[in-house]
Formats: sequence, C-alpha cells, structure tokens
Amino acid sequence: MPITTVGLDADDTLWHNETIFRLTQARFLDLLSAHADTATTEARLAEVERRNLRLYGYGIKGFTLSMIETAMELCDGEAPAPVVREILAAGREMIAHPVETLPGVDETVAALAERHRLVLITKGDLLDQERKLAASGLGELFAAVEIVSEKDRGTYDRVFARHGTGADEAVMVGNSMKSDVLPALEAGAFAVHIPYHITWAHELADAPDGHARYGTLDTIAALPAWIAERA
Amino acid sequence: MPITTVGLDADDTLWHNETIFRLTQARFLDLLSAHADTATTEARLAEVERRNLRLYGYGIKGFTLSMIETAMELCDGEAPAPVVREILAAGREMIAHPVETLPGVDETVAALAERHRLVLITKGDLLDQERKLAASGLGELFAAVEIVSEKDRGTYDRVFARHGTGADEAVMVGNSMKSDVLPALEAGAFAVHIPYHITWAHELADAPDGHARYGTLDTIAALPAWIAERA
Repeated sequence: MPITTVGLDADDTLWHNETIFRLTQARFLDLLSAHADTATTEARLAEVERRNLRLYGYGIKGFTLSMIETAMELCDGEAPAPVVREILAAGREMIAHPVETLPGVDETVAALAERHRLVLITKGDLLDQERKLAASGLGELFAAVEIVSEKDRGTYDRVFARHGTGADEAVMVGNSMKSDVLPALEAGAFAVHIPYHITWAHELADAPDGHARYGTLDTIAALPAWIAERA
Repeated sequence: MPITTVGLDADDTLWHNETIFRLTQARFLDLLSAHADTATTEARLAEVERRNLRLYGYGIKGFTLSMIETAMELCDGEAPAPVVREILAAGREMIAHPVETLPGVDETVAALAERHRLVLITKGDLLDQERKLAASGLGELFAAVEIVSEKDRGTYDRVFARHGTGADEAVMVGNSMKSDVLPALEAGAFAVHIPYHITWAHELADAPDGHARYGTLDTIAALPAWIAERA
C-alpha cells in the first residue's frame, strides 16, 4: 500500500505550543495568587475553558477571554483592572511569540516533501496558525493547509480526499491521540503518534490497542523510515 | 464566457452581521458614557481595532478583546470590573446571536446552486462562521467553504482554481468593495457588489471605473439574471 500523502499536525508536532500556554497559565496563577490558591485557579480555568470551547473554539483569543472570565469568577466579579490588563498583555505576547520548531522537524519535513504530498491539518485561530506556518519557514513544503474547527473522522475523510488519494493512502502524524490518531484511523488512514512532553487535558485519550495502521515514535526524525517500512 | 462558479461572501451578503456589531458597539458606548463621550469612545475603539487587526484578525473574539482594551485606555487603565464583565457577556451574546438571512437569500442561493458551483468565501472566526452557515440552513447548497484570513487577489486565484474552473469563469459576490469586488476583478473574475446598508469603515473603497466584468445590484434576487446575461 503506497502512502502518497502525509498529514501533519502543527502545534506541539512541528513547533512548541503547549509550553507557551503553560507559561502564560503560570503567569495567570501568579496574578491571582492573592485571590485564590493555585489548585483552585487551575481547576476553575479548566472549567471555564471547557465551557467556552463550544463558543470560542481553539486558540489564543478564546484562551485570553477565558482567563479574564476566570479572574472575574475568582474575584466575585470584581477582578482588579491591573489583572485584566496583564491578561490582555499576556494574550498579545502569546500571539507575538516566536515560532520554534521542534528538534528534527526542519530536516524531516523537507525530506518528506520530496516523496509525499504534505498537508498541514490543525485547529486554532486561522490568522494565528497561518502566521506561525509562515514564521516557521516550512510553508513552501506543504501542498495544502487545512485549518479546521474540529478533527474528527469526517475531517480526515474530506481532507485526504481533497488533497491526496484518499485516507487509505495517507498517514496522519501528530501529538494528540484524541485529535490526530484515533479519528484518522477511523477514517482508514495510517496514524503516527509522536507525544509531546505535555498534553492539554482536553486532548488526552487512550492509545489504540494493536491497530495494524498505528505507530508511535519518539521523534519525527524516525517518521520517514516508518513510512518506508509500510510501502 | 460561461460562469461555472459563484463565490459568495457571508457576513452582510447572506445574513446580517454588521448590524449586530453596531448594536454591541452602541451598548459599549453606553457602558462607557460615564468615562468618555460617544465620539471619543467610538474613535478610540476604531483605533484599537485597527491596531489589533494584525494580531487578532477578523471576528467577534478579537472585537471583544479590543473593546476591553479600549475600556482600559479610556479609564486610564482602571476600567471597572462590571464594565469588563458586560463586554465579555456582550461578546458571548454576539456569538450566540441567531442567524438571520437577508431578504431573497434563501430562494436565490437555492436557485444558483442548481446551475453553478457555489463557494462560500469569508473572513472571520473559523468556528463562528461554520456555526452561522449551519444555522442558516444554506450549508448543503455550497460545494465548498473557504474561511480565509485575508481576501486578496491571490485568495481568489487559489480558491477559484481549487473549487472551480479558474477565476476567469467565476463571479464573486459580496457587500465589500474592498474585499469582495476589487481583488476578485484583479484575479480576472467577474464581481458583483451588493451593498449592505452599513459598511465597516475598514471595508470601504471606491467602485471600479467602468470595468467590463463589474456589476452592482440592489438585491441578491437580481443575481441569477445578471449572471445569465453574461453567459
């Protein structure tokens, strides 16, 4: 079975992302330390984020709004203005944060592009993801970019039909078991999990049990060999 | 010259949008009336929005963040918490606002879909635009949906090549001279301007002067006849 098309997740697969969220979150916990203990703030932020996901989707702008809302809730509706200003500033800094590709990404993506059609498949804010791709210097290597609001089986069916030769001849590669691996396998694609050292709670899921089209790798540098073995 | 493909803008072309922004803005002006006069607040909000466009792109989440930032600036960094809470609530209500299609849209889009490939081409928040399309009941009539961060000549080149038979055989239809009409004409497409009764200041531009492929219509109901005349 040829693998014509390689779908690549972006955040925490090609470049650091969750680290930046966690740093901002640490700054947020610190900001609110006079109003609530760390565990309470953390739990409340997670709850507000989950509640807002349906409205805001994924990305920095929604995260910023959720931080402000959480601050209000933890301060009985009276979050001090400097706290709100700090949160706004933190959100802007996240957007402006330089893009740092993960070890092995630059060489491996360049090598993959010589043999396969590469498609970037990612959630998040449209403009923000486009900016990161441009800043990464990898943009020219991708035949297509799909920024989607949800990654489910239908997403992979559609994207690999549109930009490749169908899910059957495609592999999806990413750090999220829930968003990158499981729905891609359901769509009939190959799927490779490359864990990032931290995972957003909303993206956790169990690994598939002995699926013939599933693999897990420590580093993206091992991906070309993994694909070659399946050819 | 056959017109195989019809690109349709969404906000203020298929359904009301700017009206909802203006209502929220009126609420915002009112909210800040104790701190600044209407003209000052309005001017400052426009300035903050323009400054943030590069960071936030188009859409409700960025607008909400810009309102909070404007409130902070107008209150010397000390916007009262109730003002911030009201802005957050206003943003959430905008997202949850029911979609109301413009007069003639439902019938006309259905009629166009029988003869042409329809492509929705819009800016804004990804999740928000997908939700509006689903709520409008028009989703099934579109062969493709392209939510883009910018509408320039390259956007139309790419979208009409991917989903149609090239810009040469496509028409772009929308309420924005700057985003829908001028760059589509540059790409070699036909373009039809259907003005909405209010236009966001950032979308204003002059009409093209006597361009053979340009038309302006009072209502979308006149679009099928306009296209038929060009066939």
